[in-house]
Amino acid sequence: MSCSVAQCLEVVGEWWSMLIVRDAFLGVTRFDAFQERLGIARNVLQARLTKLVDAGVLTKTAYSDRPLRYDYRLTDKGRDLWPVLTAMRQWGDRYAAPYGPPLQVVHNGCGHVCDVVLTCAACGDSVGPGDVTVADARPGLIPLRDGARG
Amino acid sequence: MSCSVAQCLEVVGEWWSMLIVRDAFLGVTRFDAFQERLGIARNVLQARLTKLVDAGVLTKTAYSDRPLRYDYRLTDKGRDLWPVLTAMRQWGDRYAAPYGPPLQVVHNGCGHVCDVVLTCAACGDSVGPGDVTVADARPGLIPLRDGARG
Repeated sequence: MSCSVAQCLEVVGEWWSMLIVRDAFLGVTRFDAFQERLGIARNVLQARLTKLVDAGVLTKTAYSDRPLRYDYRLTDKGRDLWPVLTAMRQWGDRYAAPYGPPLQVVHNGCGHVCDVVLTCAACGDSVGPGDVTVADARPGLIPLRDGARG
Repeated sequence: MSCSVAQCLEVVGEWWSMLIVRDAFLGVTRFDAFQERLGIARNVLQARLTKLVDAGVLTKTAYSDRPLRYDYRLTDKGRDLWPVLTAMRQWGDRYAAPYGPPLQVVHNGCGHVCDVVLTCAACGDSVGPGDVTVADARPGLIPLRDGARG
């Protein structure tokens, strides 16, 4: 499927993958620490870590030879998932956090709690689904209805 | 799991769910149209649609009595997934679209292709993972390392 959303899901669409990426952003690097935080079966965690390494989202670097142990760290490609993670967090904070957001994210620059808004890189205005028009950039590949809007 | 990312994944974390939401944004409302576009088994599609309706992301409204047929449309809660979808699309465009982005999204306000940047709602500056500090808003619930940064 050529859709870029689908391509993103190919890499991080398995349930645990995005939570591994979340924990990597929070500074977790080691298998046992991921395992303890996520409460995930070790073989599932290993499979997800391997997939994320293969996809170029994480790197693994040995920090111990005997036994052989690795640190897992985000690549630039992995760090570029921050907007996805942040958008998910904000949606969850809004719709599924009856006791308030579990994490407080503060913008270092201004010191305020960092609610993120999406803005147009060209003009700086905030953008939402009603502010854009979606067209098929490669006609024939994706059947879109005429006049469909994002 | 109290994490808001996990709560978001609970609703849209199954592979097809986010693609259904994507197609709903593109104007698709009917079962057969989702099925044709996604190439998904009908029972899987029905299960995902039902879950999205139960979660308040989609509404279903009968458009035909005999046979009974429904339109599925995004609720406000569903439309608020647009930042998640957009962030996924941009990541996929950047890292998994060797022939260029399959969709062209134009900002109606300025007429430019709409690359979206995340900005702080309080001060308007663009924000990335290095610009924020993450703290546990409800100590005890989520073990975070001291000084962990988002």
